[in-house]
Amino acid sequence: VLSITADILQIVRKAKQPISKKEIATASGLSVSAAADHVERLMDANLLVHAAIGGSSGGRKPRLYAFNKDAGHLISIDMDTASAQVAITNFDCSILAQNSCSFDIYDGPDKVLNHIKEVIFELLTQNRLDRSAIKGIGFGIPGPVEFASGLPISPTLMPGWDQYPIRKFWSEHFHCPCYIDNDVNIMALGEYAKGLVLEVDNMMIIKVGVGIGAGIICDGKLYRGSNGSAGDLGHFDVGRDVTCWCGNRGCLEAVAGGKAVVTQAKELALSGKGDYLLDMINKKGTLDMADIAVGIQRRDAVSIELNRESSSLIGRVVASIVNFLNPELILVSGAFSEFEDTLLAAIRQAVYKRSLPLSTRNLLINKSALGNKAGLIGAAYMTLEQLIINSINDQEDANLATG
Amino acid sequence: VLSITADILQIVRKAKQPISKKEIATASGLSVSAAADHVERLMDANLLVHAAIGGSSGGRKPRLYAFNKDAGHLISIDMDTASAQVAITNFDCSILAQNSCSFDIYDGPDKVLNHIKEVIFELLTQNRLDRSAIKGIGFGIPGPVEFASGLPISPTLMPGWDQYPIRKFWSEHFHCPCYIDNDVNIMALGEYAKGLVLEVDNMMIIKVGVGIGAGIICDGKLYRGSNGSAGDLGHFDVGRDVTCWCGNRGCLEAVAGGKAVVTQAKELALSGKGDYLLDMINKKGTLDMADIAVGIQRRDAVSIELNRESSSLIGRVVASIVNFLNPELILVSGAFSEFEDTLLAAIRQAVYKRSLPLSTRNLLINKSALGNKAGLIGAAYMTLEQLIINSINDQEDANLATG
Repeated sequence: VLSITADILQIVRKAKQPISKKEIATASGLSVSAAADHVERLMDANLLVHAAIGGSSGGRKPRLYAFNKDAGHLISIDMDTASAQVAITNFDCSILAQNSCSFDIYDGPDKVLNHIKEVIFELLTQNRLDRSAIKGIGFGIPGPVEFASGLPISPTLMPGWDQYPIRKFWSEHFHCPCYIDNDVNIMALGEYAKGLVLEVDNMMIIKVGVGIGAGIICDGKLYRGSNGSAGDLGHFDVGRDVTCWCGNRGCLEAVAGGKAVVTQAKELALSGKGDYLLDMINKKGTLDMADIAVGIQRRDAVSIELNRESSSLIGRVVASIVNFLNPELILVSGAFSEFEDTLLAAIRQAVYKRSLPLSTRNLLINKSALGNKAGLIGAAYMTLEQLIINSINDQEDANLATG
Repeated sequence: VLSITADILQIVRKAKQPISKKEIATASGLSVSAAADHVERLMDANLLVHAAIGGSSGGRKPRLYAFNKDAGHLISIDMDTASAQVAITNFDCSILAQNSCSFDIYDGPDKVLNHIKEVIFELLTQNRLDRSAIKGIGFGIPGPVEFASGLPISPTLMPGWDQYPIRKFWSEHFHCPCYIDNDVNIMALGEYAKGLVLEVDNMMIIKVGVGIGAGIICDGKLYRGSNGSAGDLGHFDVGRDVTCWCGNRGCLEAVAGGKAVVTQAKELALSGKGDYLLDMINKKGTLDMADIAVGIQRRDAVSIELNRESSSLIGRVVASIVNFLNPELILVSGAFSEFEDTLLAAIRQAVYKRSLPLSTRNLLINKSALGNKAGLIGAAYMTLEQLIINSINDQEDANLATG
C-alpha cells in the first residue's frame, strides 16, 4: 500500500546525482506537491539528506536531495552448504568489510549459525563497530524459503534446517530485523541493484553449484511466487531414469547438479574410466567439485566430458524456460570459473538453437557481473528494501496515532 | 510513469461500491490531497462519475465516486485457427452482444480479417450502434505477438500472418485504437479481471487446443516478458524424438497438442488399431479434434488413451513449471470439455506428485471459470487497460502544453 513512498526513494537512490522535488515529480508522475509530501516523509525517516543546491533556469535555485547511504550499517550473509561469506555494508550496499568461514552443513543449524555469528562478531570488532550500529541482517541460504516468515521449507540440501527459526537466532544477538531468502534470489537482487550496466526489467540468473536454481526479476521486481519458492530449476523433469534427493525421478539437479556430477565422476573413476579422477580419490580419499574443476584446467577428458554433459542438459532446460519467460538478460554463475565457460557456451547454444525467434530477439546471455559478490550485495539490498518499507510503515502508524 | 493515476482508477473499478476520496487515499497510500488530484484527472477523462452521497461519521457527507462503465463500447475478438468469436462490450467488459464465424486460417490474413469485419459490422447494425461508438478494439490471436507493435511474430499455426499489420487493417474501418495479444494472454486477463471468486496475485492459465500455451499473471499483472512472447509452453523440450513445426525436435506441442493428437489418431486408425477412428475417417474423409472428443464420450479406448497420454505429458511439464513459477492458482482450459476432465486430473496428479512441498502448499488447480468467454472478456479488459493509460497520457500531454 505504501509502495509509492518506497518508489520515490528508489527514484532518488537510482539517480546518478542529487535531484530536486520537481525532477522527482516528473520521474514518478506525481504532482510536485504530492512528491514533496513523500520527500518530507523520507527526510523524517533519515533516508534522504539535503545535497548541494542545484542550478536553475532562473530565479531561486532548487534544493537537491540524495539518498543517505550512511544512515546505518547492514550485515550480509551468503551461505552455501559448506561455507558462508559475511560482510558489513553501508545503506548503499557497498561492502565495507568481508570475511568467510567453512563448516559442514550436516552439523545442523545451531552449530553452523553460531559459527557464522562468531565470524560476524570478529568482523565488527576489527572494524570498531558496535552491534547497535547494525540496522538489519540479510541472510541467503541454499534452499527454499517462505519469505514472509523467513522459514526454510524442506530444504533438500540442508538436513535439519526445515522450519528452523533463523530469525529468532539472530534476534538473540542483534536488535534489528533479519530477512532471509534463497541464495539465488539474493544474487538476482544484487545483479539487478548494482551489477548491471544495462537497464533491464526482465532478467534471470542461473546458479549451478551443488544444486541448480534461478532468481527471477519480472517487470523490475524480484519475483518470489506465492510462497517464496519461485525460481526452482533443479527439479525440472528431464526424463532421465535417476532418483533425486527430493524423492522424484528425472530431476535436472539429480543428473546435472554439482552433487550429481561428483557422483558420476566417482563412479567413472572407480570403474577404471578416469585415471586423473582415480588419482585424486586415492590421494584425498574422496572427490569434490573443486577436483573436477582442476581436471578441466588440466585438460582431463573425463572431467571435461562430465562438465559438457551436465551443461548441455542445463542448456536444454534453460532454452525451454526462455520461451516461457521471455527475459531480456540471462546471467550464468557456476561454482568454479572452470565450469562457467562451458555452461555459458552450452546455454547460449541451446537457447539460440531451440528458443523461438521472438523470445531471443533481444536476449543477452552473459556471465554474472558481480561474480561471488552478487549474493552479499543482494542480501544487503534485500534488507535495505525491507527496512525502507518497514520504516515508512512504522512512521505511517506513528502519524496515524498522533495525527 | 503515469501509472499512479491508472492505479487509482483500478482501485475505484475494483471497489464493490462507490468510494470517497479519503477511501481512495487510504487504499493507495497517497495523501488525501494527492488522491484528489488523480480523481479530478479521471473525472476530466470521463472515466469516473459522481455516485450517491455517502454516509459519514459526522459532519458533511463525502462525495462518492464510481467507475463510468458506460463511457463507451469496445469490440472484442477472440480468434483461433478455424473460427473467431466477436463481441460488443461496455467499459465494464460485460458482453452486450456476441456472434461468431468460421474460416480457414490458410486463406491468409486479408480474407480472414475481412470476414471477421463483416460479422462485426452486422453485430453493430443489429444493435443499432454506429462505428463511432466504439472506443477500442481488442484482438486475441493464436500465436506470439510483439505487444508494443501489435505484430504477430512467426506464428507457427498462422501461415502468412508473420508481421502482418493487423492494426492498420482495423484503422481503415474504425477510428479507435486496436490492441493485439496472444489468445492465452487475454484469457488470463479475463479470468483475472472477472472470472475469479478468489483474489489471487499469481496465477497461470493453460490452454490446450491445436497448440499449447499459457497466460501468466505475476504479482497482479499480466506478464508478457521482454518481447511479449512469455507463456509459451508448447515448445518445452520433453525429450521425444519428434520434429515440431517450429523446426526443433521434442517440443511438447509436437507430441501432446491437438494437432499432434489428431495426427497420432490418424496413424493408429490407418494401421488398423482404432476401429472407431477409422470409421470416422471413412465417413468424413478426415479426422479432427471434435471426432476424438466424441470418441471419448462413446468410451472408445483408443481416443481415451490418446487423451490420457497427451494429458500426462502436459501434466509433467506443468509440474516442472509449478516449481519454477510458484503460482497460487492454475486454470485449465481445453478445446472440448471431453478433453478437459482428463487434462485437469493429469495436471493435478503430476503437480501434487512431482512439485516441491512449498510450491504446492496453497496451490489450487481448477477448470477455467469463464470457459469460452474468458478470451472475449479478457480482450475487452486489455483494451480498457490500454485506453486508460493512453487517455491519461494524452491528457497529461495536453496539460503540459497548456499548463
